[in-house]
Amino acid sequence: MEAAQPLHVLYLIAIIAEAMTAALAAGRREMDWVGVCLLGCVTALGGGSVRDLLLGRYPLSWVEHPSYLLITGGAALATIAIARHMHHLRRVFLFLDAVGLVVFTVIGCNLAAGLGMPVVVVIASGMITGCVGGVLRDILCADIPLLFRAELYATASVVTGGLYVAGQRAGLPHDAVMAAAMVIGLGLRLLALRFGWRMPKFVYTDSLH
Amino acid sequence: MEAAQPLHVLYLIAIIAEAMTAALAAGRREMDWVGVCLLGCVTALGGGSVRDLLLGRYPLSWVEHPSYLLITGGAALATIAIARHMHHLRRVFLFLDAVGLVVFTVIGCNLAAGLGMPVVVVIASGMITGCVGGVLRDILCADIPLLFRAELYATASVVTGGLYVAGQRAGLPHDAVMAAAMVIGLGLRLLALRFGWRMPKFVYTDSLH
Amino acid sequence: MEAAQPLHVLYLIAIIAEAMTAALAAGRREMDWVGVCLLGCVTALGGGSVRDLLLGRYPLSWVEHPSYLLITGGAALATIAIARHMHHLRRVFLFLDAVGLVVFTVIGCNLAAGLGMPVVVVIASGMITGCVGGVLRDILCADIPLLFRAELYATASVVTGGLYVAGQRAGLPHDAVMAAAMVIGLGLRLLALRFGWRMPKFVYTDSLH
Repeated sequence: MEAAQPLHVLYLIAIIAEAMTAALAAGRREMDWVGVCLLGCVTALGGGSVRDLLLGRYPLSWVEHPSYLLITGGAALATIAIARHMHHLRRVFLFLDAVGLVVFTVIGCNLAAGLGMPVVVVIASGMITGCVGGVLRDILCADIPLLFRAELYATASVVTGGLYVAGQRAGLPHDAVMAAAMVIGLGLRLLALRFGWRMPKFVYTDSLH
Repeated sequence: MEAAQPLHVLYLIAIIAEAMTAALAAGRREMDWVGVCLLGCVTALGGGSVRDLLLGRYPLSWVEHPSYLLITGGAALATIAIARHMHHLRRVFLFLDAVGLVVFTVIGCNLAAGLGMPVVVVIASGMITGCVGGVLRDILCADIPLLFRAELYATASVVTGGLYVAGQRAGLPHDAVMAAAMVIGLGLRLLALRFGWRMPKFVYTDSLH
Repeated sequence: MEAAQPLHVLYLIAIIAEAMTAALAAGRREMDWVGVCLLGCVTALGGGSVRDLLLGRYPLSWVEHPSYLLITGGAALATIAIARHMHHLRRVFLFLDAVGLVVFTVIGCNLAAGLGMPVVVVIASGMITGCVGGVLRDILCADIPLLFRAELYATASVVTGGLYVAGQRAGLPHDAVMAAAMVIGLGLRLLALRFGWRMPKFVYTDSLH
């Protein structure tokens, strides 16, 4: 999170957007207000928290900046008030959710690269930051994570992380690499949403366990 | 856990009660004896473990005191033997579960306050300690966590934590603050159980994801 | 993982086998290729990762050896290509999965013993390493973990860990103890599979909660 100013603004937009989409998921399951608030916090901050746990990086961001808990919990609660107008904003939210995915991914890559991690771990750190919040949301809703079936969601994260790493290794300017990786990853996700692009499915019907 | 003697006794009662209610949840899903034992340990010790992971506080309590694993696993197994008499004890268990909630909450607040954490993190630490064990139990049973719908469960934990923090800041005697926070939080939860109080639900039916 | 050469070879076989069985579970739920790859990595490496998180042992194995991510992700993807032939290999895979269980268990015990942990924690560390990967797989598939019902799965892990600890305390040669614990644990699991041995179930039908 100790990143340049524009990335930090994007981060705040991203955690608010993730908290609000999580609140809608909670509303679809008729959770109570406390559940809405908690699911919002976990979804918005869970990816970064799991990344920090796995990399052993303390304190976690919301321990260092408790305001993130208030912002995401507040955004989730505010969603209850404005939910009746939200279906008009459906496209806005899908867009903000895609922005959140690539912003989280670049922040995660950035952080692991700063710790001197190898390339594969840098990309994994980006994916974990970008995708695990949504996985936790789906687990808490007792669903199979959408990630495993959605339109190029994890793929957009991997592409973003891969471009970040490639740009860094090519010695290109850091901020330009971050911006380009985010724009291309975002474009891929938005095109996938627009045209329904999906990864091929693996269908296996034997009963082996 | 390095708390005053009475709190430690309450802690032991609480982990036993949580392990036994988890064992009943396992029995409702026809798990085998190993599953009963594991679900008991995870439910009773999971909240404190997740709190310690998130705060980076090592060793975890059951690593330092392995007897906690034996106590909770043993309590879960003992539940199998006495389950036929348990429905007579339904009220006792709901009461002990509520005691566990506020005891765990105060222990979690206490611990985070001792680490010099900010107020929001102190309250979050209490909630995580109090509520996450039950969330893990519900995830392992493939249910939507009860926490998100139960009678003021998480709310009682927040109220307990909030009173703890308020009392500390007011400079009141530490033990009196802990006791008062627990009694009031327990009262709130018991009244909610008695009268079926719930937080309002958020119901949202649009198909946005 | 910093173990003797033969144990390391067994470890590699075990993570490949776990990733491939996870890929089949993903295929049964019609996940896409990214989901297959991720579920393979999480299942194969999740047990060791959770153990390291709980014991506070950094860096995690796949952070230190990122090739493990490539091996397990690659094995999961390769499974898609060869899945049509897999039902002929059903027995091979059940065997390799059982090998993985005892290998993971001994590695987990070994590691905790090396950190000077108490006996109960050594056995728990073995069980967590052996069993948690499959639990994470089942959670991500929104199933009740198979562990809680399968043929002596967790039991074989506990027996392996118990023999390891007993042999160490008896002062027997370390490598012989490891080998014997693995062979006996493996035998128990294979016999349980062959004859359908299960732990007794706990069935509880009251509606408490």
